[in-house]
Amino acid sequence: MADQKQIILTGDRPTGRLHLGHYVGSLKRRVELQNSGLYDEINILIADDQALTDNADNPAKIRDNIINVVLDYLSVGLDPEKVTICVQSALPALHALTFYYLNLVTTARLSRNPTVKAEIQMRGFADEGLPAGFFCYPVSQAADITAFDANVVPVGEDQLPMIEQTREIVEKFNKVYGETLVLPKAVIPENETQRRLPGVDGKAKMSKSLGNCIYLSDDPKTVKKQVNGHMFTDPQHLQISDPGHIEGNVVFTYLDALCTDAHFAEFLPDYANLEEMKDHYRRGGLGDGTCKKFLINILEETLSPIRAERAKWENDIGAVYDILQAGTAKAVETTNATLARVRKAMRINYFEDRSIIKEWDKLLKAAKQ
Amino acid sequence: MADQKQIILTGDRPTGRLHLGHYVGSLKRRVELQNSGLYDEINILIADDQALTDNADNPAKIRDNIINVVLDYLSVGLDPEKVTICVQSALPALHALTFYYLNLVTTARLSRNPTVKAEIQMRGFADEGLPAGFFCYPVSQAADITAFDANVVPVGEDQLPMIEQTREIVEKFNKVYGETLVLPKAVIPENETQRRLPGVDGKAKMSKSLGNCIYLSDDPKTVKKQVNGHMFTDPQHLQISDPGHIEGNVVFTYLDALCTDAHFAEFLPDYANLEEMKDHYRRGGLGDGTCKKFLINILEETLSPIRAERAKWENDIGAVYDILQAGTAKAVETTNATLARVRKAMRINYFEDRSIIKEWDKLLKAAKQ
Repeated sequence: MADQKQIILTGDRPTGRLHLGHYVGSLKRRVELQNSGLYDEINILIADDQALTDNADNPAKIRDNIINVVLDYLSVGLDPEKVTICVQSALPALHALTFYYLNLVTTARLSRNPTVKAEIQMRGFADEGLPAGFFCYPVSQAADITAFDANVVPVGEDQLPMIEQTREIVEKFNKVYGETLVLPKAVIPENETQRRLPGVDGKAKMSKSLGNCIYLSDDPKTVKKQVNGHMFTDPQHLQISDPGHIEGNVVFTYLDALCTDAHFAEFLPDYANLEEMKDHYRRGGLGDGTCKKFLINILEETLSPIRAERAKWENDIGAVYDILQAGTAKAVETTNATLARVRKAMRINYFEDRSIIKEWDKLLKAAKQ
Repeated sequence: MADQKQIILTGDRPTGRLHLGHYVGSLKRRVELQNSGLYDEINILIADDQALTDNADNPAKIRDNIINVVLDYLSVGLDPEKVTICVQSALPALHALTFYYLNLVTTARLSRNPTVKAEIQMRGFADEGLPAGFFCYPVSQAADITAFDANVVPVGEDQLPMIEQTREIVEKFNKVYGETLVLPKAVIPENETQRRLPGVDGKAKMSKSLGNCIYLSDDPKTVKKQVNGHMFTDPQHLQISDPGHIEGNVVFTYLDALCTDAHFAEFLPDYANLEEMKDHYRRGGLGDGTCKKFLINILEETLSPIRAERAKWENDIGAVYDILQAGTAKAVETTNATLARVRKAMRINYFEDRSIIKEWDKLLKAAKQ
């Protein structure tokens, strides 16, 4: 049993550049956790293997986006001195753990997973059939989490069933083979607006295929265009003087997630804070143009240092590769140690020492009597 | 693409000692294949991982029986100088290959596998639920076969759907990632009696739980008791003078599988061969006692050298362990080489060399334009 260190596991599927939704929903928080000093280990997994479960015929997409995801990590302030950034497919222990955990879960249980159910529908697997790897990916996630002995897993609310599945596997494993694995706990954001930022078009999720994202690496012109050209506001707010609605108004949802009182002092001193601004919008007289301009200023203040940091790292991909390689090498050690513990608990570590010879010898003699 | 060597993969789940059914159905044939000189490699996999898919809560059973299976192998004349005997759980490449192949198979396809369907029914998984690992084991078998580049897989007829599943995975993999894996071919016994020896009670399959087996390691007294006490003959053959039936008569099924003309010369010179004996039995006048005595003589001639060889090895379990360890070490190399080829084909070998740095660099520059 591992000691009671505070260990975090988190990560992303490398299927595209990371966007503002990732920033608000998890990246910003990771940087805070990193700088809090409260955690013994923070492991960030680039889940290329998981991405392959529904992109098996397009490995190039995953390969190309690993670098984008690492660059996004480094750009937002994740510090390789403080966190371990690693690549899933290069950690052989995860494959072995997945293999053994599959024996501890029934197909019926996997079929009931609401996250997987929703994703199956979203990805339209009905036609071509559901890849078994995708069906089993909650088990692979359990392998990821337990391999790092993670007890703290920051997730969005929609990922809670995945952590529940991991906890069930941990409990089953420890019951069958003895206390071996650490039981993880999901930690979800307290602030509701951090839970999921909608797309600029108001759709629930930012998605590359919908073209409704603001990427961390977008240039100022693109950001401006997404806000001014595509951001959904209040369709009933036709004249500036009309009363406006805040609910479902993406500009205000983004402001909820991003703006501080300091932003008002700097860019919109007419209001002391967001509440005052919302009040004005509700009673009429505040135009969407003004709101969007304010949001663009805040976005620029948020994104320009990220963009600058990215540009710096983009000029030294060799250094980024070294960071990834070093983090992965460290993670190989960590996860192999867990696998060794698991194999020992299952007593399938036949070739670790020769003690099994005596055991077999005794067994064969006993069978003769 | 591997060259066109003739490579065999075969093996057993270590859930018990091997019995006469294994001997007639596969072990005898393996020794013949070994001595034929026709094959470049013969790999024999002790499939402990596969056995765990439906014995997850009883790993001790698997652990205890690995030694029994190796002893049975050595006793029947499998020669570690000519064949590679290895333990599945100690081959990490198999876990990785299973993981990636799962992406190439749909859950619907796995559900249609007739072998798995039959086994699910036999094992009564309906109540407690089907372990996902068991559901996926055809994919794990595909990993086993392809990891050794096996193109020849000797199987019983009931295993044909498994080889078909492997062939589908190989074809899919090669189509998506380029020619990488060797397409295996199932080879089934030509002689029908070798396909499956029934239990002594006439039930289709020898099974430990039914107590209807003759084990290769049974002593002469036990063998005699199984034949004289429990072997099913012809229930209508009440008097020696009654006409007897051959079909479904287990004594004759076993004779079909085991006896030669030389056995008649040695033990039952009244007949030149089995046809003459059968004719006499059919027309009446040949007692079951005589038939059983003849069978016992043949069984003893078959089993006594096996038993003697086993006794020799049982006195040196250290040497058996060394054989297993050396075979497994060799298999680790073979299967890791295949995995390296697979990872290269999938282009997920990020840390093999630094060439990806240039590739990523180019990609990022192109994205800026």
